[in-house]
Amino acid sequence: MLQPDYKIFEMNKRLQQRTDDSDNLWWDAFANEFFDDEAQLTLTFCLEDGPKRYTVGRTLIPRFFRSIFEGGVTELHWELRHAKDSFHQNTVSLDCDQATMVTQHGKPMFTKVYTEGRLIVEFNFDDLLRIRSWHFAIRNHRELIPRSVIAMQEPGMVETLSKNITRQGLTATTLNYLRVSNEVSSRIEPLSEGVDPDTLPLPGAQTLTGQNMSQQQQMDNLDFGSEPFQFQ
Amino acid sequence: MLQPDYKIFEMNKRLQQRTDDSDNLWWDAFANEFFDDEAQLTLTFCLEDGPKRYTVGRTLIPRFFRSIFEGGVTELHWELRHAKDSFHQNTVSLDCDQATMVTQHGKPMFTKVYTEGRLIVEFNFDDLLRIRSWHFAIRNHRELIPRSVIAMQEPGMVETLSKNITRQGLTATTLNYLRVSNEVSSRIEPLSEGVDPDTLPLPGAQTLTGQNMSQQQQMDNLDFGSEPFQFQ
Repeated sequence: MLQPDYKIFEMNKRLQQRTDDSDNLWWDAFANEFFDDEAQLTLTFCLEDGPKRYTVGRTLIPRFFRSIFEGGVTELHWELRHAKDSFHQNTVSLDCDQATMVTQHGKPMFTKVYTEGRLIVEFNFDDLLRIRSWHFAIRNHRELIPRSVIAMQEPGMVETLSKNITRQGLTATTLNYLRVSNEVSSRIEPLSEGVDPDTLPLPGAQTLTGQNMSQQQQMDNLDFGSEPFQFQ
Repeated sequence: MLQPDYKIFEMNKRLQQRTDDSDNLWWDAFANEFFDDEAQLTLTFCLEDGPKRYTVGRTLIPRFFRSIFEGGVTELHWELRHAKDSFHQNTVSLDCDQATMVTQHGKPMFTKVYTEGRLIVEFNFDDLLRIRSWHFAIRNHRELIPRSVIAMQEPGMVETLSKNITRQGLTATTLNYLRVSNEVSSRIEPLSEGVDPDTLPLPGAQTLTGQNMSQQQQMDNLDFGSEPFQFQ
């Protein structure tokens, strides 16, 4: 019987195998390997306008992961410190108060983003150890840049260098995806369980550039129809 | 039968359990858990004055690891990408051309150091999978600092911020330890196998601050007797 944290280690290894050619089939296989058919993935965090909670249903999980890379991330893995396991009748759960989602971004310059929080994962208690629920409660994030770029700075560079490229560790693409999939799930899922997630309209990433908009304004700005979001 | 990379994952977990109270006994237990009694650890890298190759024998391995933390590191782990295993009659070897030693430093400011290179590890082919040889050939390193410190900069800060705190990812303390243990091993080990590594005199870290000294000058500056190196 493998430990739950070994399953996260395996997920990290699988994510290393992603390439720019990894298509929807690849992400479906990824989600199928690690997530149960009924799995849910929840993210909670605070933005300027208050706390957020987004839950992604099983059909949308592959595209949630894909949205991370579409947002400019080139590498993704989780680091767990002092994770605790607990065993129940049908499930095993992992509770890690010092979990970090580590992403690497290539543009506009090399950046590592450390998103810290509490990760609670519930696995099926069987040989596959597939995930039934994934809840990442983000506390804070830290963006790190190479020391060497500081010496190269020109007038105006300080401002560019000091500007974060994520909000709470999440790119605009992923934040939009969470908003829209949440919205679409609550509107469509009760009507049609078999909806194909690849046909869902998604907004362009540029709709989330205004960091001080109210939530209502942001929702108004989301484009649900005219410009389908393309994963290329 | 576990994979060799899982053993590195376990070593990373054990290193997380280190605290400021971890003494020589803790490090001996660490080395004993992961390294064979005949193990050797080799580091190769280039400094300003040419290529270096240091080999640490089994008795000195615990203090080699300890020297990393004594040099100001607060966390240490290895990240392996696309590691390849090969199985032989009595050994299993892991060859990873994209290995990274990740260290976190708290002073003079929060810094993550990514030391990249090729890691070749040979394990005993049995249940314990203890390491017989560890060879890390360092190619380059990258020091990352929080984006947020850039905005706070005052006159003169640019120079402080842009100065590396390691050479090829290694602190002055670890570089000194490698030099002295290499020197001591070649002088003492043929005479006395049972030498207690804790009695070895080691130089203070400050002897390595001159980055442009020649190797001869650096060797001349090493203090082998009057000021024993203290791990406290």
